[in-house]
Amino acid sequence: MDFAAWMATVQARTETALGRFLPAAATAPGRLHDGMRYAALGGGKRVRPLLCHAAGEVLGAEAERLDVAACAVEMIHAYSLVHDDLPCMDDDVLRRGKPTCHVEFDEATALLVGDALQTLAFQVLAEQAVADPARQLAMLSLLARASGSRGMAGGQAIDLASIGHPLDEAALRDMHRRKTGALLQASVLMGAATGHADDRALNALSDYGAALGLAFQIVDDILDLTQATDKLGKTAGKDLDANKPTYVTVLGMHEARRQAEVLRDQALAALARSGLDDGARLAWLADLVVERES
Amino acid sequence: MDFAAWMATVQARTETALGRFLPAAATAPGRLHDGMRYAALGGGKRVRPLLCHAAGEVLGAEAERLDVAACAVEMIHAYSLVHDDLPCMDDDVLRRGKPTCHVEFDEATALLVGDALQTLAFQVLAEQAVADPARQLAMLSLLARASGSRGMAGGQAIDLASIGHPLDEAALRDMHRRKTGALLQASVLMGAATGHADDRALNALSDYGAALGLAFQIVDDILDLTQATDKLGKTAGKDLDANKPTYVTVLGMHEARRQAEVLRDQALAALARSGLDDGARLAWLADLVVERES
Repeated sequence: MDFAAWMATVQARTETALGRFLPAAATAPGRLHDGMRYAALGGGKRVRPLLCHAAGEVLGAEAERLDVAACAVEMIHAYSLVHDDLPCMDDDVLRRGKPTCHVEFDEATALLVGDALQTLAFQVLAEQAVADPARQLAMLSLLARASGSRGMAGGQAIDLASIGHPLDEAALRDMHRRKTGALLQASVLMGAATGHADDRALNALSDYGAALGLAFQIVDDILDLTQATDKLGKTAGKDLDANKPTYVTVLGMHEARRQAEVLRDQALAALARSGLDDGARLAWLADLVVERES
Repeated sequence: MDFAAWMATVQARTETALGRFLPAAATAPGRLHDGMRYAALGGGKRVRPLLCHAAGEVLGAEAERLDVAACAVEMIHAYSLVHDDLPCMDDDVLRRGKPTCHVEFDEATALLVGDALQTLAFQVLAEQAVADPARQLAMLSLLARASGSRGMAGGQAIDLASIGHPLDEAALRDMHRRKTGALLQASVLMGAATGHADDRALNALSDYGAALGLAFQIVDDILDLTQATDKLGKTAGKDLDANKPTYVTVLGMHEARRQAEVLRDQALAALARSGLDDGARLAWLADLVVERES
């Protein structure tokens, strides 16, 4: 299967699995469940599920089990987007080419949609058999650490505090690693935990995920300035308007692009030392993250 | 140990354990961690930890393990209060006798405080040894179901949708069971799961928790109308001002009080058929919930 066909397959099965794990809109309370489905279904590149599946497949994990891990990560991601878009945060009206959740519904519903999507992520990962129970607890820990106050939510807090304040490169990198990098890295490691990885492979995949995760956010910074809103599916130029420090404002466009390339090379080098037979899809994903146009 | 001394002991050890599980305010991002500690420490009756400990102790659970379960439930409760108080929800300025989190900090920080407290609840329950791994996964599932879209968050969604709409008693009961009852019942069951309960005891404790949980919210409805703000530690009269249906507005004060008494009797009857040797503390807690004045 070529990369495009594999990607479409994983995206389709992620959509199907999410649709199955999310309560039906007909289940009470209907408006909340409708909002959860609106926020989680029918959009997004599904980068995190792709990473999870790519890492798990090469380690012999069953696709059905990877669906569970992938959906848990994707629900965390979806919750974070709903909350980040709220008026008290980034105050955005457009996401994945659609009105944001609080615009389509209302602020209170969007708040609860995010809250309940986070809960459901942990519920699904606790209830569905993906590994032996002890390892499943370790996966829950991994997901919580990546998304909690020292991971994604912490990165968002630093992001808010940085508005109008200059950050040096080290502080910016720390913020990006938390805000975006931690959950992308966790996606790779959750896929790996579903399969059979030795320490050498795990360490290499952890390095791969860290490099790719940071590259992803640098490219996001670049696209925010270089792409049109209709192409991004979200409002372009937001970082500059909000006076947020980014890799482009701190290092300049040329250096930001160069660093994304360096990180891609680091990700590929990590794969090369992983000892894995077939890291082609993971390598493709590193290319996708750096070369994407939206 | 008499009931008051036992209660003070559990409250103190819950405070200590929460303080240990919450990241230090000096850990970056400091403002977020400061907010999490502000929201979770130094206040509250700790009804959920009391229920968890009372149920666990009588089933032979170790106090240190019960601390973990109690803190996980209490973090979920604390997160829900922070989010419920936000301007887009109940828009309240006072909680536990202090300014609400978004008043003391800011709305964006309060949003992230709630988000990260939820995450930490699941992290702590996934990482600390409280039972064998399979049972620990079951406890994570129990906590998620009680707090998610069909539990607490769902009850909050129904509560919002009910503003200005008359509810019949059945709909009101359903809302209260989700909004408050589910997490109180889960507190009892998480304590029980940490110990050694047979099916008879578990079923009886489940019935006890359900009755007590609903009684708690009915008493909340009554106190909202009968107590002063300084006694409650939160703004009194909010339900009426917000035109929210409550047990008092739907059934009248007399019938609301009567139903709380009936539910206490049901809780005590469930204890009597549990087969447990010493349900005295659980019986006391049922009295406390119905007879409390704040």
